[in-house]
Amino acid sequence: MTQFIQTSIISLLILFLTACCNEQDHEPAISEPLTSWNETSSKQAIIQFVKNVTTENSTRFVPQAERIAVFDNDGTLWPEQPVYFQLAFALDRVKALAAEHPEWKNTQPFKAALEGDLKTVMEGGEHALLELVMATHAGNTTEEFSQIVKHWLSTARHPKTGRAYTEMVYQPMLELLDYLRANGFKTYIVSGGGIEFMRPWTEQVYGIPPEQVIGSSIKTEFEIRDGAAVLVRQPEVNFINDKGGKPVGINQFIGRRPIAAFGNSDGDLQMLQWACRGYDVTNNERFCLYVHHTDAEREWAYDRESHIGRFDKGLDEADAEGWTVVDMKQDWKVIFPEQ
Amino acid sequence: MTQFIQTSIISLLILFLTACCNEQDHEPAISEPLTSWNETSSKQAIIQFVKNVTTENSTRFVPQAERIAVFDNDGTLWPEQPVYFQLAFALDRVKALAAEHPEWKNTQPFKAALEGDLKTVMEGGEHALLELVMATHAGNTTEEFSQIVKHWLSTARHPKTGRAYTEMVYQPMLELLDYLRANGFKTYIVSGGGIEFMRPWTEQVYGIPPEQVIGSSIKTEFEIRDGAAVLVRQPEVNFINDKGGKPVGINQFIGRRPIAAFGNSDGDLQMLQWACRGYDVTNNERFCLYVHHTDAEREWAYDRESHIGRFDKGLDEADAEGWTVVDMKQDWKVIFPEQ
Repeated sequence: MTQFIQTSIISLLILFLTACCNEQDHEPAISEPLTSWNETSSKQAIIQFVKNVTTENSTRFVPQAERIAVFDNDGTLWPEQPVYFQLAFALDRVKALAAEHPEWKNTQPFKAALEGDLKTVMEGGEHALLELVMATHAGNTTEEFSQIVKHWLSTARHPKTGRAYTEMVYQPMLELLDYLRANGFKTYIVSGGGIEFMRPWTEQVYGIPPEQVIGSSIKTEFEIRDGAAVLVRQPEVNFINDKGGKPVGINQFIGRRPIAAFGNSDGDLQMLQWACRGYDVTNNERFCLYVHHTDAEREWAYDRESHIGRFDKGLDEADAEGWTVVDMKQDWKVIFPEQ
Repeated sequence: MTQFIQTSIISLLILFLTACCNEQDHEPAISEPLTSWNETSSKQAIIQFVKNVTTENSTRFVPQAERIAVFDNDGTLWPEQPVYFQLAFALDRVKALAAEHPEWKNTQPFKAALEGDLKTVMEGGEHALLELVMATHAGNTTEEFSQIVKHWLSTARHPKTGRAYTEMVYQPMLELLDYLRANGFKTYIVSGGGIEFMRPWTEQVYGIPPEQVIGSSIKTEFEIRDGAAVLVRQPEVNFINDKGGKPVGINQFIGRRPIAAFGNSDGDLQMLQWACRGYDVTNNERFCLYVHHTDAEREWAYDRESHIGRFDKGLDEADAEGWTVVDMKQDWKVIFPEQ
């Protein structure tokens, strides 16, 4: 009898302690990760990598603090067609600000922007785009700009799908972000897009807080305005976080070399190289993945010849280096979240 | 008997569950925080602020994600006398590199640096210091520079105390960092010093990881060298994280307004204003603290007239705004950690 009671007590204790302390584990019980991914080599490669770096006492184990994963945004976490979503924002801002700028009716690229003549805007090239961004992104405080972005996202709709832009994120990539975080990774956005355009919504949409967003920026200036400290956005480029700028931005913000990088275009190539071609320095396990837009029906299909998100040198290097290339059409069960 | 056994089982379960699940609390059981602080108003103000922002269901409660605390480094976490420690590093680097630069024997400010003639170096002003920094901090990869800094710190000793520089951090501030983190704060360094000069050691010394260090920087350029991706440090200023640059840097890196800021000089004033003078935008509880160097015996005493770490406008504003001013001599039981 005494032994029975002792055994019962011990069993109960084990039961309760297990129930209690399971919550302390860093890996939540996800029965099946990446459910929107088909059972192809891409999914297998991701899972194998995560297994390698999280298996303790393995030579491939990577301490949690070093599990840094960097993600491009446009074309990697959400689409970039028919134009970068931030350009759609800039064009809408031109319309919103037009009353204050009567001269825009007769000045390019503003005239074209007001007339919805995207072809002429694009023909103006980088200079025209920069002019649009400066005229629509500067002159306000950082907090005012954040409110403007939030308001636009709550009303604007994508021309093809009619969805809110923040509902056009890739469901399989949301699951990938979750899966990595559940395995102790710190996930960062490293985008050519504007840092202040992304920060107001990335936490809610991707689970990525503002301090883990790296992007292009314009200069800001500190000022005491009506007794309060503000930062005023200036019409001057501070940093272009694209191509060779991506590793520069990553080093500047994080100060660690990522062990995983995810992109979709040649603009991400140097970021992937920074993550996956540092073998001289560290023996850490590394993982690089390109999203290849191959699904003209459910999303868009483009690569080597595209003006937006050209994927040419990156595709060659992915082949040469054995990086994972996601074939959207084959690898993804769904593109966007259910509505 | 049965009831006795049941009671015993329940008692045991409670005991074990309590022991187990205490570990899950975000606030470790620190019986007495800030033990190196005397029982003065400074300590009381810190503890009151932390109590305010961590008391749930209080109007002053601040969610954990918003508990951002920013710390200047030179003069706030470690001394800045007789010269900034990074300048001591630069002078030692001039000596180490002199063999490769025979022309330095006859060129200022290098000649003075080689002769240990600090007076002449300082007379050269900002331009001379910049020349020294560029000649000694650039031309290598980010990973090489990190190794150089680590090696220097392992051998260099402070001229007054004979201690390693990383053993000359302020013990009361180490306790403050710990105390804030134990209460859910994320602690950042926001220094005028070089970001890459600090990152190699701040995690070990302050518990602040590289991604939470913000500082001045020189430009870097991405390169594939012998097949590996590297960033090469260029002799060109990228960003000066001082005065009005501090809020700019904070916004750039963190994208949230801190609720607590700690500095010691006029160079920190705009950072403290950014944290504590945003009342128009948010009603969050806020806390600003200046360390006043008042202890000529145990450390150094300097303020309004000092060339290094001048504390003049900041002292006036602290008075006007009711910020906490630490009187080192009165408020701190010890300055440096026990050896």
